[in-house]
Amino acid sequence: MVEQALENAIPGDWRVNERLKEAAIYSLAAGGKRLRPIFVLAAAEAVHGDEKAASLAMPFAVAVEMVHTYSLIHDDLPAMDNDDYRRGIPTNHKVFGEATAILAGDGLLTHAFYVASEAAAIGVPAERTLAVVRDLARLAGFPGMVGGQADDMEGAQGITSIDQLEHIHLHKTSDLIAFSLRAGGHAAGATDRQLEALARFGTNVGLAFQIQDDILDITGDQDKLGKPVGSDERQGKVTYPYLIGLEQSRRRVEELTEQAISAVRSAELADSGRLEQIAMRLISRDN
Amino acid sequence: MVEQALENAIPGDWRVNERLKEAAIYSLAAGGKRLRPIFVLAAAEAVHGDEKAASLAMPFAVAVEMVHTYSLIHDDLPAMDNDDYRRGIPTNHKVFGEATAILAGDGLLTHAFYVASEAAAIGVPAERTLAVVRDLARLAGFPGMVGGQADDMEGAQGITSIDQLEHIHLHKTSDLIAFSLRAGGHAAGATDRQLEALARFGTNVGLAFQIQDDILDITGDQDKLGKPVGSDERQGKVTYPYLIGLEQSRRRVEELTEQAISAVRSAELADSGRLEQIAMRLISRDN
Repeated sequence: MVEQALENAIPGDWRVNERLKEAAIYSLAAGGKRLRPIFVLAAAEAVHGDEKAASLAMPFAVAVEMVHTYSLIHDDLPAMDNDDYRRGIPTNHKVFGEATAILAGDGLLTHAFYVASEAAAIGVPAERTLAVVRDLARLAGFPGMVGGQADDMEGAQGITSIDQLEHIHLHKTSDLIAFSLRAGGHAAGATDRQLEALARFGTNVGLAFQIQDDILDITGDQDKLGKPVGSDERQGKVTYPYLIGLEQSRRRVEELTEQAISAVRSAELADSGRLEQIAMRLISRDN
Repeated sequence: MVEQALENAIPGDWRVNERLKEAAIYSLAAGGKRLRPIFVLAAAEAVHGDEKAASLAMPFAVAVEMVHTYSLIHDDLPAMDNDDYRRGIPTNHKVFGEATAILAGDGLLTHAFYVASEAAAIGVPAERTLAVVRDLARLAGFPGMVGGQADDMEGAQGITSIDQLEHIHLHKTSDLIAFSLRAGGHAAGATDRQLEALARFGTNVGLAFQIQDDILDITGDQDKLGKPVGSDERQGKVTYPYLIGLEQSRRRVEELTEQAISAVRSAELADSGRLEQIAMRLISRDN
């Protein structure tokens, strides 16, 4: 469902610069786990109790994947992380050039808000849709993802405590996942209390996800990961295992996952089963 | 009013990476004509008949200036136009470095949607506010400003007709000005017919503004412009005067301004006086 919605996300009757559109779709189609859109849909289902609510939430699912994709394109730029490959294929600027990659990122970020606003046209109340727009701008913006990326660049060399590292991941990764959960909740008419519980689930699962990434970089299988293991250490990156060791890192992943599950269990959702299932599956993933 | 609103645009209680915030405010405070916010407020006043409507439109005025500022920061990057100075001061990346400049632009673009969405909290109906969010994402996005920038980069060498040049300016410059007029109209409860007339005014004034820029680059006074004259020719840029001569370019500016004024005169606005005044003043500007 998500793949199909992503394919149709730029209206066919819009006259858009061909190369720009090609560059945007190149990165959007490059795959990945689609974790954020899946969380949007699963949150809507958890609040509403059946899959119907997921169709109302689809514009938010597409929007969050666009924001995630733009952030990867810009992060890969030579002036940022200077990465040549992502998910086994050349990064956007390696294929289309830096200027087009910058504009493709800008376009995807802008278009995410267009797509999100369309929820109102398929039945999400305007107030709810606007609340999601506002959440997205906050959690992807200065106090959220963009700020986290700036913290990460600045602090890359000087991180000495787990608190500092956790603060960076909280904004760089968890905020957009927390947004995904809230957006799905809004689409299904969640109460404020439910929205808060969903956001707490997202924040904790997001942190756990990041730590698990750090662990897999050491213990993972190159073929399954699709990238060489040990790259964090070679790049001198400060990671959870580096700061607190593998065993403690694993314990932290379990602890965060338990906290996530207990947050949604106590929120009187119609059915939190799928959310719990995804959280548990993320712990045992090998890529 | 606009300057003060811009200063307070990032909530003081948000914890934002200091350097990132400094970079964003550096460019936001760097001035310019504030043409787009002024058009937002003037459009609201034109529809409503007095200045009170302008306060409802202020979030949109701040939002459009943020989008304009982000586009300048990204356009100035080495991978794009590679400019070292803008408005007489060093460009963002010259002061803060490329990575921070990219993130400051991303942050300003994202935050524009936060600010725009706040209009609902001060009395603009949610449906109207959402329509403005949608307009902004469209007119600043793939089929609008970002697409126009991509067309411009691609076509820079190969433009041979006035139609091609006008198409680029239409999206690169006029679309965001048309947005400004529509946003002000929405804040004041404009009818669809009024919104269309305001957009037509914006499109025509935007094009006239761009041609006037081309003319001033040849005939202007270096001290008043704040930049050396003749830079378009030195850079080999295809401009209106280059394609159709100075005299024809001047006539096109007048023609577009007349069309703009006649659009708002026929739209049964409460008072289109100020809009007409601004359009006339832009014709006779010397910077």
